[in-house]
Amino acid sequence: MIIVKIGGNILDNPARLQAFLIDFAQLAGPKLLVHGGGKIASATGQRLGITPKMVEGRRITDAETLELVTMVYGGLVNKQVVAKLQALGCNAIGLTGADANIIPARKRPVKTIDYGFAGDVDGPESINAKALEALLEAGLTPVFAPLTHDTQGSMLNTNADTIASVLATALATAFTVQLVYCFEKKGVLQNAGDDNAVIPHINQDKYKALKEEGVVNAGMVPKLDNAFAALQQGVAQVLICEAESLPRIHTGHYSGTTLSLN
Amino acid sequence: MIIVKIGGNILDNPARLQAFLIDFAQLAGPKLLVHGGGKIASATGQRLGITPKMVEGRRITDAETLELVTMVYGGLVNKQVVAKLQALGCNAIGLTGADANIIPARKRPVKTIDYGFAGDVDGPESINAKALEALLEAGLTPVFAPLTHDTQGSMLNTNADTIASVLATALATAFTVQLVYCFEKKGVLQNAGDDNAVIPHINQDKYKALKEEGVVNAGMVPKLDNAFAALQQGVAQVLICEAESLPRIHTGHYSGTTLSLN
Repeated sequence: MIIVKIGGNILDNPARLQAFLIDFAQLAGPKLLVHGGGKIASATGQRLGITPKMVEGRRITDAETLELVTMVYGGLVNKQVVAKLQALGCNAIGLTGADANIIPARKRPVKTIDYGFAGDVDGPESINAKALEALLEAGLTPVFAPLTHDTQGSMLNTNADTIASVLATALATAFTVQLVYCFEKKGVLQNAGDDNAVIPHINQDKYKALKEEGVVNAGMVPKLDNAFAALQQGVAQVLICEAESLPRIHTGHYSGTTLSLN
Repeated sequence: MIIVKIGGNILDNPARLQAFLIDFAQLAGPKLLVHGGGKIASATGQRLGITPKMVEGRRITDAETLELVTMVYGGLVNKQVVAKLQALGCNAIGLTGADANIIPARKRPVKTIDYGFAGDVDGPESINAKALEALLEAGLTPVFAPLTHDTQGSMLNTNADTIASVLATALATAFTVQLVYCFEKKGVLQNAGDDNAVIPHINQDKYKALKEEGVVNAGMVPKLDNAFAALQQGVAQVLICEAESLPRIHTGHYSGTTLSLN
């Protein structure tokens, strides 16, 4: 099966989003979509008079920000994507990690920074894979918003890359899973200034070298760490590419970055 | 199985909502919850600068109001209810009618009034009951927001009473369905000024007489019409009561109104 994560840059652009959803709807076999947030949350927050809270450069999910992301990610973005996929013949079902208790999480412990209602997932073993498999077996395409819950009654804000990685790993026991991160670049770049300098393949040794050389920058490290963790735990393949590459991932003309252990 | 609809007056009161959810979580057997909106949508709309649109006294769902209710009903209210039910040991899954294409609807045709993005459901035969039954068989408790979709890519705003009635009817072929409308009064009242003057039982003949006498007022007519339509199409029983009566609906001490055909 294929698990695709799309970022805010696609969600923010109606034409790109529609083109992506047409490609996604046409993918054969069981599939699952994880979406991020995008600027709509900040824009809605601004209209509501909610100012983004930052501590030491990190975004904090305070109580009103949690309400904002629950509304915007779990409601507006998620249901608009579901309605559009339904119109394209893809039997989508919009979910958060609270629904069917698929992704129980923990409120991030306060150390030097109190991140507020940020949710950390223990790992793939805490995912309720059976519920997810029942939905897939019913022919449904789950669409996840980047939200989890603390199992004590509160929603939590969780990184979409992490959700994609942990779901891919949890499903790897039942399926051969391909995990695709669609983002704003064509792939992992050898040279940040050259959008066409895509590194076609990265294994663990090369990743170590790229980090030492400083080619892989701070923003990419969590994404690649997540990806290699997924590969180490049974995910068959991880691809990092732009959304427009999705129809070509099974052809020889794919232009993104393929990650593998060796 | 039991299908319960709760109105905005419960959603707007955190203590009443929590008490209701505790009672709902304890109901045995397959169950389903439909929730309305509540004042949170109007309050959020006001903060966003969205003014309620009324034409000839009827509420209109224009494009920005559709975004508002998709956020607030489909995101904030729905996911908060799901997270709270999960904490109470009820394996809830939050849905709209777009999810799994369970409730396809039509944008209401423009006659004298353009209601905007208001969704009408053709009838129980248009419900995707198989998808809903698959969720119930997986041990899940569906929680529906009052939203549907037009199958062409747009969400629609649909009355929660109608959703409860049409889902109950669609499930009546597979289950013996009891439909419970929890609202702000103790039941249908003989005398609007006396909150304790609950009419314990209404059949079709009595309903006709109550309408002629003017005992059943304008606000109750659509609710009761929905209820009798559900009974005519196979729903076993319809109860109208306050939320606090839920734990007693299977006892002799139930104080609401029971509807039946004869």
